[in-house]
Amino acid sequence: MSNSIGEKFQITSFGTSHGPAVGAVVDGCPANLQLTAEDIQKELDKRKPGTSSVTTPRKEDDEVFILSGIFEGKTDGTPITGVVFNKNQHSKDYSMLKNTPRPSHGDYGWMAKYGNYDYNGGGRGSGRVTIGHVIGGAIAKKLLKTQNIEIISHVTQIGDIKAEAQDFNSIKENIEKNPVRCADLKAAKQMEELILDKKQEGDSVGGIVETIAVNVPAGLGEPVFERLDGDLARILMNIGAVKGVEIGLGFDVANCTGSQINDEYKIENDAITTKTNNSGGIIGGMSNGMPIVSRIAVKPTPSISKCQNTVDLEKMENKKIEIKGRHDPCICPRVTAVAESSTAIILADHMIRSGFIHPTDLEK
Amino acid sequence: MSNSIGEKFQITSFGTSHGPAVGAVVDGCPANLQLTAEDIQKELDKRKPGTSSVTTPRKEDDEVFILSGIFEGKTDGTPITGVVFNKNQHSKDYSMLKNTPRPSHGDYGWMAKYGNYDYNGGGRGSGRVTIGHVIGGAIAKKLLKTQNIEIISHVTQIGDIKAEAQDFNSIKENIEKNPVRCADLKAAKQMEELILDKKQEGDSVGGIVETIAVNVPAGLGEPVFERLDGDLARILMNIGAVKGVEIGLGFDVANCTGSQINDEYKIENDAITTKTNNSGGIIGGMSNGMPIVSRIAVKPTPSISKCQNTVDLEKMENKKIEIKGRHDPCICPRVTAVAESSTAIILADHMIRSGFIHPTDLEK
Amino acid sequence: MSNSIGEKFQITSFGTSHGPAVGAVVDGCPANLQLTAEDIQKELDKRKPGTSSVTTPRKEDDEVFILSGIFEGKTDGTPITGVVFNKNQHSKDYSMLKNTPRPSHGDYGWMAKYGNYDYNGGGRGSGRVTIGHVIGGAIAKKLLKTQNIEIISHVTQIGDIKAEAQDFNSIKENIEKNPVRCADLKAAKQMEELILDKKQEGDSVGGIVETIAVNVPAGLGEPVFERLDGDLARILMNIGAVKGVEIGLGFDVANCTGSQINDEYKIENDAITTKTNNSGGIIGGMSNGMPIVSRIAVKPTPSISKCQNTVDLEKMENKKIEIKGRHDPCICPRVTAVAESSTAIILADHMIRSGFIHPTDLEK
Amino acid sequence: MSNSIGEKFQITSFGTSHGPAVGAVVDGCPANLQLTAEDIQKELDKRKPGTSSVTTPRKEDDEVFILSGIFEGKTDGTPITGVVFNKNQHSKDYSMLKNTPRPSHGDYGWMAKYGNYDYNGGGRGSGRVTIGHVIGGAIAKKLLKTQNIEIISHVTQIGDIKAEAQDFNSIKENIEKNPVRCADLKAAKQMEELILDKKQEGDSVGGIVETIAVNVPAGLGEPVFERLDGDLARILMNIGAVKGVEIGLGFDVANCTGSQINDEYKIENDAITTKTNNSGGIIGGMSNGMPIVSRIAVKPTPSISKCQNTVDLEKMENKKIEIKGRHDPCICPRVTAVAESSTAIILADHMIRSGFIHPTDLEK
Repeated sequence: MSNSIGEKFQITSFGTSHGPAVGAVVDGCPANLQLTAEDIQKELDKRKPGTSSVTTPRKEDDEVFILSGIFEGKTDGTPITGVVFNKNQHSKDYSMLKNTPRPSHGDYGWMAKYGNYDYNGGGRGSGRVTIGHVIGGAIAKKLLKTQNIEIISHVTQIGDIKAEAQDFNSIKENIEKNPVRCADLKAAKQMEELILDKKQEGDSVGGIVETIAVNVPAGLGEPVFERLDGDLARILMNIGAVKGVEIGLGFDVANCTGSQINDEYKIENDAITTKTNNSGGIIGGMSNGMPIVSRIAVKPTPSISKCQNTVDLEKMENKKIEIKGRHDPCICPRVTAVAESSTAIILADHMIRSGFIHPTDLEK
Repeated sequence: MSNSIGEKFQITSFGTSHGPAVGAVVDGCPANLQLTAEDIQKELDKRKPGTSSVTTPRKEDDEVFILSGIFEGKTDGTPITGVVFNKNQHSKDYSMLKNTPRPSHGDYGWMAKYGNYDYNGGGRGSGRVTIGHVIGGAIAKKLLKTQNIEIISHVTQIGDIKAEAQDFNSIKENIEKNPVRCADLKAAKQMEELILDKKQEGDSVGGIVETIAVNVPAGLGEPVFERLDGDLARILMNIGAVKGVEIGLGFDVANCTGSQINDEYKIENDAITTKTNNSGGIIGGMSNGMPIVSRIAVKPTPSISKCQNTVDLEKMENKKIEIKGRHDPCICPRVTAVAESSTAIILADHMIRSGFIHPTDLEK
Repeated sequence: MSNSIGEKFQITSFGTSHGPAVGAVVDGCPANLQLTAEDIQKELDKRKPGTSSVTTPRKEDDEVFILSGIFEGKTDGTPITGVVFNKNQHSKDYSMLKNTPRPSHGDYGWMAKYGNYDYNGGGRGSGRVTIGHVIGGAIAKKLLKTQNIEIISHVTQIGDIKAEAQDFNSIKENIEKNPVRCADLKAAKQMEELILDKKQEGDSVGGIVETIAVNVPAGLGEPVFERLDGDLARILMNIGAVKGVEIGLGFDVANCTGSQINDEYKIENDAITTKTNNSGGIIGGMSNGMPIVSRIAVKPTPSISKCQNTVDLEKMENKKIEIKGRHDPCICPRVTAVAESSTAIILADHMIRSGFIHPTDLEK
Repeated sequence: MSNSIGEKFQITSFGTSHGPAVGAVVDGCPANLQLTAEDIQKELDKRKPGTSSVTTPRKEDDEVFILSGIFEGKTDGTPITGVVFNKNQHSKDYSMLKNTPRPSHGDYGWMAKYGNYDYNGGGRGSGRVTIGHVIGGAIAKKLLKTQNIEIISHVTQIGDIKAEAQDFNSIKENIEKNPVRCADLKAAKQMEELILDKKQEGDSVGGIVETIAVNVPAGLGEPVFERLDGDLARILMNIGAVKGVEIGLGFDVANCTGSQINDEYKIENDAITTKTNNSGGIIGGMSNGMPIVSRIAVKPTPSISKCQNTVDLEKMENKKIEIKGRHDPCICPRVTAVAESSTAIILADHMIRSGFIHPTDLEK
């Protein structure tokens, strides 16, 4: 089951960058959710390349077709299949990679494992497969919206430039105003410049993406192995370039004491809440009703045009490589759409699993 | 399936801190692995409390009994059940917690979810349930050892004290020489002092635990959703006090360029290897044959004796709480055993799933 | 996951006939179900051997201990572990079987698969492992009872003796009055005699067990792969001696026309019902609100004392075998408890999965 | 996970009879299997309607397109997606069914469950969704062929007409010579006449389909819950019209003694075999190396043009129904392709799970 994720709300992803299509089957979405191709297209457009100075100049239409699961404008409880046909494949760019694994790409592990490597643009290892994530995430977001849950991902760091914290509504508004999808507009400008510099040098740069989900009820997740934090960490670490995941204070807890960071309870407006949210909305594996906050460390795109050392797998000898093609100098802005989708998939799954959404019929 | 983890090598954990027993059923271990209760006991003793100045003074024997799965000294392919009967339960310590959720503990989410909370020492949310993890991990480690794979976890930071890096063999040796399980003996001494200070203050402190697995072959894990890094991140984040997980360089990738951190390939002794291991042994979701390196951020134990604010859930009013009982001022040293076990479980599972270990018979 | 069944209500079974214990972990039972060891013991006593003329004279106490999952008399949402320690093992009876597979027993497949066979009384292949099924089934039955669902299994055929049909209440009452657990008391007497004849001859005889579940709501099961009929067929076929499963009319549909057996709808007391129940309560993979009726074909116990041909696996030569030990001449009466439990497990699982029972808290 | 089946070799099916498409994602097929659309088309053509006197006159091209998973003529280890676009939908035939459940069809359970019913030709409950099964089965058969395993399904009974037993090669040859896919050509002629009679009467008739798999090694399946017989029973019972499943002697075991039907072992050509195959190739849940033989009871198509009683769900009143449309008077001949595919899927899955086929690379 290597290409599925989720238990009740389940995504099965398929396709490669240079095959006929990429897409996903979304199984377990309850019947009676209003859903159109437009709902999915809107989210896909956020991860689409070729839209700004800081992304790859490849133009891809990425138009989604729904092959199943909708009846008279609503989900009918059957699997929803979304497909994007590949159009813009420059296979000629890649043939020189046949026996030459690109540093810090999955090529070598792939060849060791499958003995049959699609060297065209990374094949199944390409970032293009996250179209499947976004198809699933778009449906999950629509479903969560019926429960008032909203999710937003934004860039908080590129290289050494860090954004100032903003509130949820400012983030929503500001990230649409700049190509970096950073909510601190001043930092965003500097980030954009840094990315363009690295692009100029034939290099790439990393960053951090934060995701916030609000209005999630207390009681999602299980206390031992099907914890909400564990499931979020998995799906976020599964995103291609991610090397770290943290919830709430994250790695800063190492240098704190219990009395400094424990989230004390209080009664507010007849409801239980916490004075602080250092836990990032998850304690003991379960949501506690506070905003769920995660951050991921995104490595610099490994595809760079600078000369690198590698090997020829057939001749078993050392070799140099300069990766041609049109690559993102910084993947963070486009990763926001994938982080948002990934978070939405896990939350939708747990909302159904925990009994907050009826498993088969949204109207029940 | 809220208390199981793993696909082919699967752990089902059970029990609470104050019920009759805790334990685990380990399903999917191939037949013909030599295994005794002693193999498991040895690992359990590493997480046992009451062994040093820096852990809780609670004494627990934690003696494991094997109820099934061994025939004539070897696994027989059937589920292995390990049980530790609870002996040292001071239930009187806990009754005052009945309607009073402890800050940054799972109590509140639990009550919201299950409506029936075992307030005795955290019940299923207690650290004591990790005995199940260690039972599973001990068997996984024995299984991995047959393939020459070794795993070690050690403390690299407590509060603001950071250890210097050591090689694999020094780590193995040095962590047994100090109660903190830190491989840098000078830092270990300072860490111990810091922990005792915090204990004195009725407070607690966080830290970082690193885990290294060596001799893992290339090709474990899948490229999209059943990635090795995602599965590791999940099981590590599932450990009670963990708020962050990183692989390889982790969050440091944010401030790096591709040309700085890409792991270039080279031929060495007729084998393919990388010049650096910034990826921490996993690229594109799959192992690449290099050591697998992860780090987890461990929060300070939320159980502190300092006075804290909380609420009375029945009366719905604010309340103060001072948590009695005997708690670890720093959980990191004992977490090493759990991190090691968790990593072993995932690697054993993927070794079987990827065809490196025969699924039913170790001798095949 | 070879020893678990169920998705939300999940049983993980462990143990062998001659190891220390047999039992099961029952995961996913919602919190707040009143449950005692007595509830489980009552069901175990139904499958207990040594209770009548027609079962094996082996006496086994089969006393269940609950190791986890109950807090103050109610389930707490954590895994429930039930264990029966083995006491009455005559290992001396079995040593001659070491390299000699018994005809129509699993021994040979086991050796081919695991290369390490527990030849003592069948090991994990023994009927004794169904204690785990009954532990799970007892809890499932208690859970279903809160929804007014009742399940009963009874013997409808032994050899060529067939019982007359009875209504649900007569079945419940009559099966307790005879050792064969047949609801037609006249046939029961003949069946008992037939079994004793076969026992006398050192032989065994097969039969049919029917299971009826009433008050199951319409809408359990999924239309394609997680169908209620498919899931029932699987768990029933999984019972050791079963070679056939049918729902409703079963194999008799082959010689019928659509107009003869279609279940026509009608309105009755303002509710929708069907005039007949030839479908056995399941159409299109989903329950339709009518009683769910299944039948299983139970083969004669393969352990017979008559001389049989087999092989010596070590010497690779033909050999004769006479199976000693104390065996059931007809397993059907004891299989009723297992069929009832198996059906209960599947119905409990689907009641939770389909949203009829809250997944975590029975009181919600 | 309601539309997926299989653990390592997994099918996720999607689509409805009157939506844009039906198909399946096949995940877990090892890399390096030679595979073309033609391999799948060949199997789909077997279940295609409109090909003979005894099937529905609906003409459907059912042309399959492969959207992913093939690279340079071979599987690449990534998910294989096969799609058939729907062309021949007469939606006008069905609108009168909107609130009128057809007797012995899934309509009523569907409405109870999902509250949103696709009344066009059965929607997801249509036999047309078995196109997904056959896409999966075609790939499974190709994979099994590399291990010398062959599977064939044939009709053994229609109404009261029973076929004489034939050997494996005769079955393969003869079923292609008649529209009923019965290997006894004399019986086949009578079956054809019976079906045409029933068609004339606006009625339908049931039957039995047998499936035989040869060259399956000993050791597939697990002894308790993931048994090969249980998994086969499930997938076969999951086929729309099936009401019974048996393995080997099936229900005939009820009237047999152990000494009559136990399969005794013997040495033959230095190999272990059994004198008889009453067990149908599976004992104790595991294959024993003998041919695997199953039979399914297929009910008469519930769609008949004769007048039937039903209800109007909106008005809650009794009503008459005459089902128009073009239906199969006997579904058995077309079910053979689905039974064959279903069996192939389970065997392929267990061949990988049991270590007979490498999970990722067929050439390993």
